[in-house]
Amino acid sequence: MSAREVLRAPVGTTIDLADFDPAAIPLGPADKAAGSAATSELAGRLASLQERLYAASTAGDRRRLLLVLQGMDTSGKGGTVKHVIGMFNPSGCRIRAFKAPTPEEQRHPFLWRVRKSLPQPGEIGIFDRSHYEDVLIARVRELVPRSRLGRRYSQINRFEESLADDGVTIVKVFLHIGYEEQRKRLLERLDNPDKHWKFNAGDIEERGAWPAYQAAYELALERCAGEGAPWYIVPADRKWYRNWAVSKLLLEHLEAMAPQYPKGDFDVEECRKRLLAT
Amino acid sequence: MSAREVLRAPVGTTIDLADFDPAAIPLGPADKAAGSAATSELAGRLASLQERLYAASTAGDRRRLLLVLQGMDTSGKGGTVKHVIGMFNPSGCRIRAFKAPTPEEQRHPFLWRVRKSLPQPGEIGIFDRSHYEDVLIARVRELVPRSRLGRRYSQINRFEESLADDGVTIVKVFLHIGYEEQRKRLLERLDNPDKHWKFNAGDIEERGAWPAYQAAYELALERCAGEGAPWYIVPADRKWYRNWAVSKLLLEHLEAMAPQYPKGDFDVEECRKRLLAT
Repeated sequence: MSAREVLRAPVGTTIDLADFDPAAIPLGPADKAAGSAATSELAGRLASLQERLYAASTAGDRRRLLLVLQGMDTSGKGGTVKHVIGMFNPSGCRIRAFKAPTPEEQRHPFLWRVRKSLPQPGEIGIFDRSHYEDVLIARVRELVPRSRLGRRYSQINRFEESLADDGVTIVKVFLHIGYEEQRKRLLERLDNPDKHWKFNAGDIEERGAWPAYQAAYELALERCAGEGAPWYIVPADRKWYRNWAVSKLLLEHLEAMAPQYPKGDFDVEECRKRLLAT
Repeated sequence: MSAREVLRAPVGTTIDLADFDPAAIPLGPADKAAGSAATSELAGRLASLQERLYAASTAGDRRRLLLVLQGMDTSGKGGTVKHVIGMFNPSGCRIRAFKAPTPEEQRHPFLWRVRKSLPQPGEIGIFDRSHYEDVLIARVRELVPRSRLGRRYSQINRFEESLADDGVTIVKVFLHIGYEEQRKRLLERLDNPDKHWKFNAGDIEERGAWPAYQAAYELALERCAGEGAPWYIVPADRKWYRNWAVSKLLLEHLEAMAPQYPKGDFDVEECRKRLLAT
């Protein structure tokens, strides 16, 4: 079984996140040592496929990959970028972290800032949070009227379909951590002065709305599960497992894309002669 | 002696690039095995300083670092991004490769596209080619009148001074390769179909203007050598040495910046109590 099959969120049914153990190891390496080794082994293949994807774009291939990372505070979105995306050539990665919308962004439809941040052909795009915040915090904190919120799910689906049609392979990852694990990670940030910059007193407020966020995630996973934009539920209590699982998902998608080095459009023999004459 | 001292381009004198051996090892590890090991050893320190720089920016520190990479075709600008910048957390890097100006860019002053690509506070910016192309290819190919070209050197100096005043530590690296090494690398691209996408028949034309390019580089190195924006001449015939030298230069500059984790602006004890109560 592939990670795509095992980790794919159920489709066409209600989702109860309580059914998913955030510390589970549903496939792959069984412990930290094996997990770190397995992830390192993927690095070369990931980088090689990325180079092919980029090379293909120089000959007109419009395909690209977009990794969407969502999850509660401390679920490891930043850590995934550091450890997983860190295995790629940084020049082919386009990373965007979405924070609370700026006044300019607020004056536009919610997808405006997302469209501006898409990967270009040949690139790997990474969203650290995304347009899903507009049906997550927006729902939990009632930032927009319920009717407008309701329309956003189908707007997101149409948007993601249009991306798929334009050659974007979308990989949506929900980093699933447990309530106790979050407390532990927030305490770690409090206990280590070098991590204070990552801590925000508002994080405790957000934690207070945990059940509402889980429900909002369940809705997003149920309603936005188009064929071309699947959700994956990655157990994220174990950082090494999270890193392996996201790496494996990316590898499987890149392998399915099977990008190829393009043929040169020049006469190799003639170029060699000219070069040797210089 | 530091890499900053040893590799710094001479200031206040004429520069003859023929005096600099592109295969030299002026300091540091003496062979490939030692060089790769030494570079790997720098990785942790680079990543740690980068995290501090980023953390400091969350508390208002406006400082950032800008690495400018220049050099002839095949000199290893892309390889440096892959191997050196690949050691950093990609989420704090802002990489921009400058190609031939687009029609829109051509309608603006030459620094316009450069200003738009600067690193934000806390980030490490990387220019793969830069505004120096506007006094390099622009000079060699006579793309602008000589008088306009002549003014660009002082425009660049004022621009880089203004960046330094705004907290940007600029590290300008000239990747110095030899004429024979370039031929070897171009031949490798021709001989390996997987590298054809990197080859451009125009590269042979550009190679034909080698002496003119060396002269244009010498002028740029002489005229744009402000205190706040030094040039470094990195021998680049050996890839492992280039990677070590650029890594070491970045490390020395980051150490001199000495970014610090900011203090949290919250009551740790009170937050801990609230968190334990959830």
